Amino acid sequence: MKAVVILSGGPDSVTLAYKAKSQGHQLYAITFDYGQIAKKEIIYAKIIAEKLGMEQKIVDLSSLNDVFGSTTALMDENIPMPSEFEPEIIVPFRNAIFLSVAVAYTQAVGANKILYGAQGSDAPFYPDCRKEFFKAFQTAARKGTASQIEIDAPFHNMKKSEIIKLGAKLDVPYESTWSCYLNNERQCGVCESCRNRKKGFKEANIVDPTKYEE
Amino acid sequence: MKAVVILSGGPDSVTLAYKAKSQGHQLYAITFDYGQIAKKEIIYAKIIAEKLGMEQKIVDLSSLNDVFGSTTALMDENIPMPSEFEPEIIVPFRNAIFLSVAVAYTQAVGANKILYGAQGSDAPFYPDCRKEFFKAFQTAARKGTASQIEIDAPFHNMKKSEIIKLGAKLDVPYESTWSCYLNNERQCGVCESCRNRKKGFKEANIVDPTKYEE
Repeated sequence: MKAVVILSGGPDSVTLAYKAKSQGHQLYAITFDYGQIAKKEIIYAKIIAEKLGMEQKIVDLSSLNDVFGSTTALMDENIPMPSEFEPEIIVPFRNAIFLSVAVAYTQAVGANKILYGAQGSDAPFYPDCRKEFFKAFQTAARKGTASQIEIDAPFHNMKKSEIIKLGAKLDVPYESTWSCYLNNERQCGVCESCRNRKKGFKEANIVDPTKYEE
Repeated sequence: MKAVVILSGGPDSVTLAYKAKSQGHQLYAITFDYGQIAKKEIIYAKIIAEKLGMEQKIVDLSSLNDVFGSTTALMDENIPMPSEFEPEIIVPFRNAIFLSVAVAYTQAVGANKILYGAQGSDAPFYPDCRKEFFKAFQTAARKGTASQIEIDAPFHNMKKSEIIKLGAKLDVPYESTWSCYLNNERQCGVCESCRNRKKGFKEANIVDPTKYEE
């Protein structure tokens, strides 16, 4: 079955791609440059797409930085990067933009399913990672395309550690994934996203292959 | 009241901007280069934004052409342009992409309302111009931003001729609007969009200021 996977290059979407591949899906990856600081995640998304032999579109939406970049530390280097969750690490409605383009991409490749790596540990903080959001979005997508397109987010009620446990079974190369909100030589180890990554491996009781700065 | 208006440079969205301006809204225009052939509509959107003194973002999403351009005659010059409605003039889920970015823009400017020029004459043909679509999208937007954002599409049950009648009262400069799906010196006069424009003026019994090729 053909499916479009939104592949950021982070551990969640990469695990999702490995899971779907193991289930026999024919995968089309879509990866976004949305003007984020962490351009390295795009490089890792490319590595993963090659490893899995997926067709991939890397979509340049970097001009979005000019539209709402000033609202978020993930896009504006002048905003200090918090080490815990703060509202300024929300990129407003980002995932809806990704999902919208992914819906359009399904029409080009003849797919009827989008794989979306929203995960349960993020849901309390990020409204667009919640089931109530992506279900509502699925309704809008069906109305807006007059189709029965499905948005499948199988990790939406799983903790990061559970996702990593699953990925370990699937031999996901986590050393080829990027979580950090910064773009340094190594992942910083202190931003909210790096902390969640560290915590995920620790709780999963799986050796974290990542070389952090700290 | 602050509002973001999706301004394509076509008669519907331009009339909507004039209407909202006359009602005292503080308007922020957002205009998209989505890889369409008809780049001239962007020039007209710019002219209108200047006339109305609106702040405007012109967002470069032209890389979308590489994602789904091949599906639609509006983006791929190799597909013949039909002169009546055909499925290939649908740009899949385009308006959802625009709405998603517009939602993000509202967060940057502190607005709580999006003005969307979907009009009733298009609704039978374009699913993303239907009330059931934009209401579903509004629900998704509220869930995804945890806000009470409103998507206002006051023309959704109006015919084009009714919109033009309203615009004439508001002194909308229709000579500074672009409907054509092509990008010639003048609007072609024969594509589906030009035909609808001509028909709208005729039914409104208002002189069409447009100089068509045919």
